[in-house]
Amino acid sequence: MTIGIAENTAVAGPALRPRRDDRLAARLARSAAERAEGAGMRTEDFAAWLEERGRSHRFAVGRIPFAELDGWSFAPGTGDLAHRSGRFFRVEGMRAQVDEGPFRRWEQPVIRQPEVGILGILAKEFDGVLHFLMQAKMEPGNRNLLQLSPTVQATRSNYTRVHRGSKVKYVEHFTRPGGGRVLADVLQSEHGSWFLRKSNRNMLVETAGDVPRDPDFCWLTLGQIGELLRRDNVVNMDARTVLACAPVAHPGSGALHSDTELLSWFTGERSRHEVRVERVPLGRVEGWWRGESSIEHVDGRYFKVVAVSVEAGNREVRGWTQPLFEPVGRGVTAFLTRRFGGVPHLLAHARVEGGFLDTVELGPTVQYTPANYAGLRGAYRPPFLDLVLDAPPERVRYEAVHSEEGGRFLNAESRYLFVEADESQAPADPPPGYRWVTPGQLTSLVRHGHYVNVQARTLLACLTTGTVEL
Amino acid sequence: MTIGIAENTAVAGPALRPRRDDRLAARLARSAAERAEGAGMRTEDFAAWLEERGRSHRFAVGRIPFAELDGWSFAPGTGDLAHRSGRFFRVEGMRAQVDEGPFRRWEQPVIRQPEVGILGILAKEFDGVLHFLMQAKMEPGNRNLLQLSPTVQATRSNYTRVHRGSKVKYVEHFTRPGGGRVLADVLQSEHGSWFLRKSNRNMLVETAGDVPRDPDFCWLTLGQIGELLRRDNVVNMDARTVLACAPVAHPGSGALHSDTELLSWFTGERSRHEVRVERVPLGRVEGWWRGESSIEHVDGRYFKVVAVSVEAGNREVRGWTQPLFEPVGRGVTAFLTRRFGGVPHLLAHARVEGGFLDTVELGPTVQYTPANYAGLRGAYRPPFLDLVLDAPPERVRYEAVHSEEGGRFLNAESRYLFVEADESQAPADPPPGYRWVTPGQLTSLVRHGHYVNVQARTLLACLTTGTVEL
Repeated sequence: MTIGIAENTAVAGPALRPRRDDRLAARLARSAAERAEGAGMRTEDFAAWLEERGRSHRFAVGRIPFAELDGWSFAPGTGDLAHRSGRFFRVEGMRAQVDEGPFRRWEQPVIRQPEVGILGILAKEFDGVLHFLMQAKMEPGNRNLLQLSPTVQATRSNYTRVHRGSKVKYVEHFTRPGGGRVLADVLQSEHGSWFLRKSNRNMLVETAGDVPRDPDFCWLTLGQIGELLRRDNVVNMDARTVLACAPVAHPGSGALHSDTELLSWFTGERSRHEVRVERVPLGRVEGWWRGESSIEHVDGRYFKVVAVSVEAGNREVRGWTQPLFEPVGRGVTAFLTRRFGGVPHLLAHARVEGGFLDTVELGPTVQYTPANYAGLRGAYRPPFLDLVLDAPPERVRYEAVHSEEGGRFLNAESRYLFVEADESQAPADPPPGYRWVTPGQLTSLVRHGHYVNVQARTLLACLTTGTVEL
Repeated sequence: MTIGIAENTAVAGPALRPRRDDRLAARLARSAAERAEGAGMRTEDFAAWLEERGRSHRFAVGRIPFAELDGWSFAPGTGDLAHRSGRFFRVEGMRAQVDEGPFRRWEQPVIRQPEVGILGILAKEFDGVLHFLMQAKMEPGNRNLLQLSPTVQATRSNYTRVHRGSKVKYVEHFTRPGGGRVLADVLQSEHGSWFLRKSNRNMLVETAGDVPRDPDFCWLTLGQIGELLRRDNVVNMDARTVLACAPVAHPGSGALHSDTELLSWFTGERSRHEVRVERVPLGRVEGWWRGESSIEHVDGRYFKVVAVSVEAGNREVRGWTQPLFEPVGRGVTAFLTRRFGGVPHLLAHARVEGGFLDTVELGPTVQYTPANYAGLRGAYRPPFLDLVLDAPPERVRYEAVHSEEGGRFLNAESRYLFVEADESQAPADPPPGYRWVTPGQLTSLVRHGHYVNVQARTLLACLTTGTVEL
C-alpha cells in the first residue's frame, strides 16, 4: 500500500489552479466602496498628512542652465543630452512621418530610456478590505512637488543602485519571484509624444505578511484613492496607470461591438497606418534651437527641454540635477461617454504617436494641447475637441487636473474629463479611427501591453476606483 | 404615447452584442471532428487534387547569380539588397546584443519588410459544418513548390498591386469592413531570427454569402486540414499560423499557473532581458561575405542569402526573380508535454530573438538548427535539445516536417514534434525562462500579438485542428 500511495503522489504532481480568480473583482469592489475611511487614515485627514510629509523634508527645485548640469552633457558629434554613467535616460532626436492629421512629418527631441522600470503598488487586507500602500513622493516636475505615488516607482538604475543612493523601499515585493500574490503585472507604454518606445512594468502585488510602514507611506482603500483622484494634482501619473490595471468588474455585460470585433478593428487600425520613425542626433533636429537654458521649437510650440537642480530629503539620493521636458500649454484629455442599451461606453481613439512601440494605441476621445492647434480650422481642427472645451457643466461627469510623470516632465498638466455626449455630437457609428468601447473592454485590454495609452489609463483609473460612475 | 415610443427608440439606440461568442468554440470543434470528408472533397482525394493543380500550371524555380536579379540590386553605399520600386522587402544588416546564451553579440543579414500583409482564411458553413477555403499555392522556396495556403496571402504590395499583376482573389473579404463575420484578427510576428520586426495580419473571416470557387481553391474542414498536417510539407506556414489563431476550446479548466501568474512571468521575462538591436548596412555586416550567387557566414553556418528566378502560371504575376534566405540545416522544433492533474501542459520557452518587436515571445521548448550548435557542450548545449533528438518513438506524439514561409525562405524545413516528458526530464518547476502552459492558455494569448512565436503557432495549429490530442 505504501508503494501505491507513493505512486499516486508522483502521478498527481503539483496542484492545479483555476485560470481565473473569480473572487478578486468582488474584493476590489469592496475596497472601492470604502471611500471615507480606511485602516490607515480618514480620507479627510489625507491633505494634512501630505502637508506634514512635505514639511518634514526639505525640497527645492530650481531651473539651471544646461552648463550647470552635473554628470549630464551634450555629447560631441550628436549633441544628445546624456548622463556620464550611460544610464537613466537620454534626450535624443526623432524624425517621424505619419499618414494622416495636420502634421505629417516632423522632427523633435525625444526621451530614450530603453530600460524597463517598475511601478508597483503593494496591497494587503486589513479587516477584510484590500488596502494599497501609497507613498508621498517628491518629483521635481510636479506642480506641487509632493504627490501620491505607487509603493515603488523605480527605474532599473534606481533599484540596481547605479546612483549609489539608498535602497528603494519595498522593492523586494516586486523583484523577488513568489514574494506575494500578483493581481496585475503588465508592461505599459508611456507618452508616445515625448518618449521613444518607453514602457514600464505596472504591478499590483498582494502580500499576506507584515509590512512595516515607513512614515512617507500610507495604506488607503481603492475608494479613498478614488476620492483623492477628484482633487487636482494629488495622485501622480505612476499611481494612476497602475490603478488602471486593477482587474475590476464593470457593470453591464453586452457591448456595441463584441471583443473579437473590437480586436479586429484595432488590428485594422494598427495595420493601415504607415508610421516611420527614425532616431536622429539631437544636435541636428530640424525646427528646434538650443539656448543656454532650453531647447525650444522655433514657433515656441509643443515643449521645451530644460534643466533643473533638485534638493530633497526623502529621495534615494539627496540632491541631483537633471533635464526635464516642459510642455508649453496645458492639455485637455477626455473621454466622451454614452449609454447604449443601458451600458456605458467610451469613445476610444486609435492614436498614432511617434514614440509608440507599435504604431497605434487606444487613447481618449480627445487628447490635445489646444495651444498647439490654435489657428487650425475645418478638417484639421481636432475632432471632438471643441465639444469638450465647450461642454456645459451638466454634461461633465468628471473633471480634474493631473500631472504627467514628474520625474521627466515639468508642469506637464492636463485637464482630464468625462463628458456625456449624444447621437448628434458623437454618433454610434463614429468617424474612422474612433470606436465605442465599454469600460469592461478597456479593463480586459489593459491586461496586455500596448493597447491603452497612458492618458486613457488615467481616465480608466477613475473608473477602476469607483470615482466616476457612468 | 407616440412621443414616449420615439423617446424609447432614441434611448435604446443600436443593439448590444454579447462580448463573447459562446457558440464558436463548439462550431470549430464540430469542424475539427470531420476528418475524412467534407463538402469539397474526401481527405484521401486531396493528394491527387494537389498533384493535378501542380500539373495544370507550369512552375520552374532556378538559382541565379545576384547579377541576374531583375529589379533588385545592391544599393551603392549600404550594400542593402532592395527592389527598385522601394517595396516588397529589403535585405539589410542587423547587429544584435543579448544577455544570455552561447552567442551574445553578432551581426547578420536580415529581411526588413515594414508593411503589414494579410494572411486570411475564409470560412463558410456547409451542411452545418464550418469549412475553410484553402489554396494550392506555389511558392519558390517550398521544397515541393505547391502547398496548401490560406485563402489570401498577400503583402500590401500584392493587394495594392504594386507589381501590376492580377487582382488577389478573395481579398475583398478581408479588406472590406463588414464583409463578413470576423472569427479572429490579430497581428502576429514572424521569424525573429530572419525578419526585423515583421508582422502579418492573421484573419479568420466567416461569410454567409455565395463564394464562387476558383479551381486552385478547395473547401476543407478543420479536421481535414488537421489530417494534412500529419503529412510532410503540405500545409504551408501561413496557413498554420492562421489556424493557430482559431479560438477553439481545449479540454481541462485548471492550469499549473493561473493566467495572471503566467502573464506576470512573461512580463518578468520581457523586462529582465536587455536586447540591443541596430540596423547596419548589409555591405558592412561582420562575419559574412558576398559571392556572385550568395551571401554566406564565414563559418558556413546559419543561412545564406541567395537569388532565384521563378516561372509560374497561377501567381499574380507570371514570372519574377527575388532573393531568398536559405538555412544551412534542418531545424528541430518541439514542445515537451506533460499532464498535471489530468490537464495537458506544454513547456514554453521565453525566447529572445533579435528581430522581435518586443524582446521576447513564447516559443516551443526546443527550437534550434542542431548543426549551428554542433560542438557546443555542457551549459552551452541548448536545453532539452538532446531529449528531443533522442526521444524514443513511444514518447513522440506528433512528428512532421514543415516548411517555413516559401516566399522568403528556400528549403527552410523543420521537424516539428510533440514529445512526452516526465518529471526527471522536464520538472514541474523548470529552469529560468521556461514555463508550463496549457493549450487553452496559449489559445488565449494568441488572440493578441507578440506573445506566441511563429514556430509555437505551427505546433498550436496541430492542437486547434484536433490533430494531436495530448
